[in-house]
Amino acid sequence: MNNIFDFVGGDGGQWKVKEIKAVIGDSLENVPYIKIIPGLTLKSNEGLWTLRGVSSNLRYTEKDEEDKLVAIQAGLGRIEATCAALIPIHKSEGWWKLAQDERRKIFETQSRHINTGLKYLPAIARRLYHCRDYNEPFDFLTWFEYAPIDSDAFEELVGELRKTQEWKYVDREVDVRLTRNRLYDF
Amino acid sequence: MNNIFDFVGGDGGQWKVKEIKAVIGDSLENVPYIKIIPGLTLKSNEGLWTLRGVSSNLRYTEKDEEDKLVAIQAGLGRIEATCAALIPIHKSEGWWKLAQDERRKIFETQSRHINTGLKYLPAIARRLYHCRDYNEPFDFLTWFEYAPIDSDAFEELVGELRKTQEWKYVDREVDVRLTRNRLYDF
Repeated sequence: MNNIFDFVGGDGGQWKVKEIKAVIGDSLENVPYIKIIPGLTLKSNEGLWTLRGVSSNLRYTEKDEEDKLVAIQAGLGRIEATCAALIPIHKSEGWWKLAQDERRKIFETQSRHINTGLKYLPAIARRLYHCRDYNEPFDFLTWFEYAPIDSDAFEELVGELRKTQEWKYVDREVDVRLTRNRLYDF
Repeated sequence: MNNIFDFVGGDGGQWKVKEIKAVIGDSLENVPYIKIIPGLTLKSNEGLWTLRGVSSNLRYTEKDEEDKLVAIQAGLGRIEATCAALIPIHKSEGWWKLAQDERRKIFETQSRHINTGLKYLPAIARRLYHCRDYNEPFDFLTWFEYAPIDSDAFEELVGELRKTQEWKYVDREVDVRLTRNRLYDF
């Protein structure tokens, strides 16, 4: 089972870039398109940059929270979800040196990360890719898909998360907004 | 910071293989030596097999447990620790589908994994390498170093862990015993 994916910024792909904006720290180089391809199929020299991530097991979510999420969340690829955001995030060494219970406390007890995401389901579909263990420039690639009508709700969601205690540990964040490229033959 | 390492089974290396034994499921092919090298420096066709792992952040250990571990654990590479064990482990899909709190409960509340390890510190030095997110045949490479005089204690430690509830989720385990190769020029 291959859960590894490459996000290739370049001149073609399923998603057309509307804007790339640095939120914290350095931005990513501008590209017109992003192509998402199964990991390890990447040809060398393809694209201007590549971010690799892996869809993995839950790291903080507890059973009762997972049950709530599974009951209402939507999958990726809905026909009406023509908007997307790729938000790569890097957290400080201070975060990674915390023990599991300390990170969980900041993540959910204080910052309500899971509960905030829940409020925007099923409108905002999400997937988390991990990259910290790949020597990558980011720790996570967060991916969101939603319909144009839910754009305001999406801004509210990212605004809420960025005000949390958890976000004090984010030392690099780039916000890439995209629209589906209907002409792309996957 | 590169935390990725390759364990190369072949005809040379810092560690001489005494025995390779399948505990659960398939074994690994026999090799005379194991060489541990920083990840991404591997030449192709080197060795008979390679296992890749990454030393990562704590996944279950809580702050009070970490404090106890840090206070008494020994580092790798002690001159007297001429014995080592490489025990690659794979856990079932049933394990990985559990939420974080369910896995923690089995790992520590029921199986006392951390507390059992603590009893054998500082004699048995340990390091955990993660490989599940690398499309590898194992989920973890567990590595132990100890002096010959602590061999019985080491057998006791692995014996205790293998009787736990957590081990019911282990569906492949290979036990590789090694002695330091003093002739190897690292």
